[in-house]
Amino acid sequence: MTATLLAIGDELLIGQVVNTNAAWLGQRLSDLGVPVRRELCVGDRDADIRAALDLALSDSDVVLVSGGLGPTHDDLTRDTVAAYFGVPLLHDLSVMAAIEERFARRGRTLPERNRVQAQVPEGFAVLPNTHGTAPGLMHTFERDGQPRWLVLMPGVPAELKHLFNTFVAPTIEAVPGREAIVHRTLLTAGVGESHLAEQVGDLTDWLDDRTTLAFLPSAGTVRMRISARGSDRAETEARAERFAAFLRERAGNAFYGEGDQTLEAAVGERLNAAGATVAVAESCTGGLLLDRLTDVPGSSAYVVGGVVAYCNRVKIGLLGVPEEVLETHGAVSEPVARAMAAGVRERLGSTFGVATTGVAGPGGGTDEKPVGTVWIALATPNGTVAQCFRFVDDRRRNKTLTATTALDWLRRTVEKNAASAL
Amino acid sequence: MTATLLAIGDELLIGQVVNTNAAWLGQRLSDLGVPVRRELCVGDRDADIRAALDLALSDSDVVLVSGGLGPTHDDLTRDTVAAYFGVPLLHDLSVMAAIEERFARRGRTLPERNRVQAQVPEGFAVLPNTHGTAPGLMHTFERDGQPRWLVLMPGVPAELKHLFNTFVAPTIEAVPGREAIVHRTLLTAGVGESHLAEQVGDLTDWLDDRTTLAFLPSAGTVRMRISARGSDRAETEARAERFAAFLRERAGNAFYGEGDQTLEAAVGERLNAAGATVAVAESCTGGLLLDRLTDVPGSSAYVVGGVVAYCNRVKIGLLGVPEEVLETHGAVSEPVARAMAAGVRERLGSTFGVATTGVAGPGGGTDEKPVGTVWIALATPNGTVAQCFRFVDDRRRNKTLTATTALDWLRRTVEKNAASAL
Repeated sequence: MTATLLAIGDELLIGQVVNTNAAWLGQRLSDLGVPVRRELCVGDRDADIRAALDLALSDSDVVLVSGGLGPTHDDLTRDTVAAYFGVPLLHDLSVMAAIEERFARRGRTLPERNRVQAQVPEGFAVLPNTHGTAPGLMHTFERDGQPRWLVLMPGVPAELKHLFNTFVAPTIEAVPGREAIVHRTLLTAGVGESHLAEQVGDLTDWLDDRTTLAFLPSAGTVRMRISARGSDRAETEARAERFAAFLRERAGNAFYGEGDQTLEAAVGERLNAAGATVAVAESCTGGLLLDRLTDVPGSSAYVVGGVVAYCNRVKIGLLGVPEEVLETHGAVSEPVARAMAAGVRERLGSTFGVATTGVAGPGGGTDEKPVGTVWIALATPNGTVAQCFRFVDDRRRNKTLTATTALDWLRRTVEKNAASAL
Repeated sequence: MTATLLAIGDELLIGQVVNTNAAWLGQRLSDLGVPVRRELCVGDRDADIRAALDLALSDSDVVLVSGGLGPTHDDLTRDTVAAYFGVPLLHDLSVMAAIEERFARRGRTLPERNRVQAQVPEGFAVLPNTHGTAPGLMHTFERDGQPRWLVLMPGVPAELKHLFNTFVAPTIEAVPGREAIVHRTLLTAGVGESHLAEQVGDLTDWLDDRTTLAFLPSAGTVRMRISARGSDRAETEARAERFAAFLRERAGNAFYGEGDQTLEAAVGERLNAAGATVAVAESCTGGLLLDRLTDVPGSSAYVVGGVVAYCNRVKIGLLGVPEEVLETHGAVSEPVARAMAAGVRERLGSTFGVATTGVAGPGGGTDEKPVGTVWIALATPNGTVAQCFRFVDDRRRNKTLTATTALDWLRRTVEKNAASAL
């Protein structure tokens, strides 16, 4: 089985939107053992959509179409696909009811033009969309005596992911006689890609044409992705597990979790296990650290809160940083970072206090403290420590690298405290 | 003239790499008046590359191929393209010298396999690459008596951008008698796509085959993108400007900016113009609102800071929310939102105070206050107001929608205050 991805929308062709759906779908389909044969992207034009469908349906067993299901005049997917298969569009009462209910729940009146979203090409199955108004639409056809699928989904990533996971993945998984494919992703932080590869060492005994490993670095973290294939699922899973255990051991305390877990979720897990809480004082990260911590469902159990102290007055007033320390050392300094971490820990009554202060850029750099200079401090029941980092030139990347580094430092510290308490 | 983009590489199809080159090239080509007709992405397989070239060359005047020019066995582009055109690969001495010099400069020995990067299909022009080892390769062909181009570039974004800007863009710009293409993007917030379309009204007089409009919604905002074409650049720009002025007027105060501007940058612009500052008290957004405000370079001029009050103790201690109000009404309530906004404004000494409190989910919902219930409050020099919203089921989307709604409300308020002060 192979797949073609077809994204529809002028906004993609003129580069106003980056097609992140393609990468997400490519990964999910690979995991399901359905390699993507090609990705296509065309504009909101009938002839181009038809030519793309011709190509996709000529050799692919799963054709996933995204975009063009909105309520406006430039949304052509429903009409073009119905015409392509020579079937009429039918007004679906249950879809209409779902759309009406969605608007009613938000206390909004239904605009007349949203009614087109209840139109379904005859013979297509409706995939209810709990994340938006346009439902997914699935057409089942035959190739070599086997059922194959064309699926239409909205281009909004959250809606597309929801429909893929709820309807498309289970449909593919139900196909009998497929080779077992097992993926394991080990997550590490605080060690660069090359150093992690050296730490892991020689892998000749582990790798062959049925077992592969990829290193996937991104800001401050590296994922190690194992892919194993085999005719027998239990054997394939056991092989992947042995390899994963080996890599976990070699990665040591750089290892923080598996699969989709975020670093902030791992931090939450450790804090919960230790019955500990955290408070944060942010300057250069400007709220990002707290935003990430509170992205985790249930984080209110261990995130007390924090202070974004962008202006020195807030550092003094809400965090108790002494004015003379700010004047003597400047806001981006070890004593200020330490006073912020200790201050937020004490005033908010948490087990741990984390603080960031740095030059995010693009302005504000000096010879002594260039853009990318960041102090991170960690206040614990045993005292306060601080470290200086030199990150990059880009404002957003400096915020991200600082937040990731602080989160990972907190994770290692909670782990160490828990281990020494045993 | 139209273009096809063809990206080659398994890493794209399995989703290990997001194809950001496509968006970048799409935007650059649009700006140059060469609309992208389609984007294609195929793996490192001879037959798939050939099929893609067939399609691309059938109707496109500029075909930009990226990827597959590296030194390893899975880099097939050079060989496949040479075979496709039936020409031999020639060893190019000047390219070889550039590669050798590049390695020598870094004190590295040249790996034997890098020698293939000096191979050039006969008749192709070499585009020297100062950012990497593989040069670009350009084939000029004829269609309708006009010169047209197939260009091979490395997939590494920095190398691709360098080659495009240095060689491809000037080649296109030198073509005489090209049609002008003008894009305008109007940014709106606070009105849904359908309602905005209704508010804008009948567009029959504006739209034709040379002037199109697309609505591009994303969480809480809608972009309206005008595309205008014409033989005369000044006339085309004037037509786009008249249409933009019409849409701006119809959008009213939903309109906040143009082009790439973010809502948070628009808020910053308004605050700066008014000489005003803002402080934020976040509960359900958990730091996201401050994170977005501080993503804007120079935001320290108007962002005083804020408090993330996840726990009631912080709402009481740092923001002065009365304990009995929390007990009587609960944390997600109008009086608490108002007290948070007024408290952060007063304690941090800012012109405006913004507060969010809600049920982000997935837990914590009740019949009375289901997941997605959010109170936003705004404290101004003229008093404090609050509004209740019902957003969605997803935690991250609730945070995003709340932050966007609060930012937009702040923007409108600063605008209104500025207007009434005149």
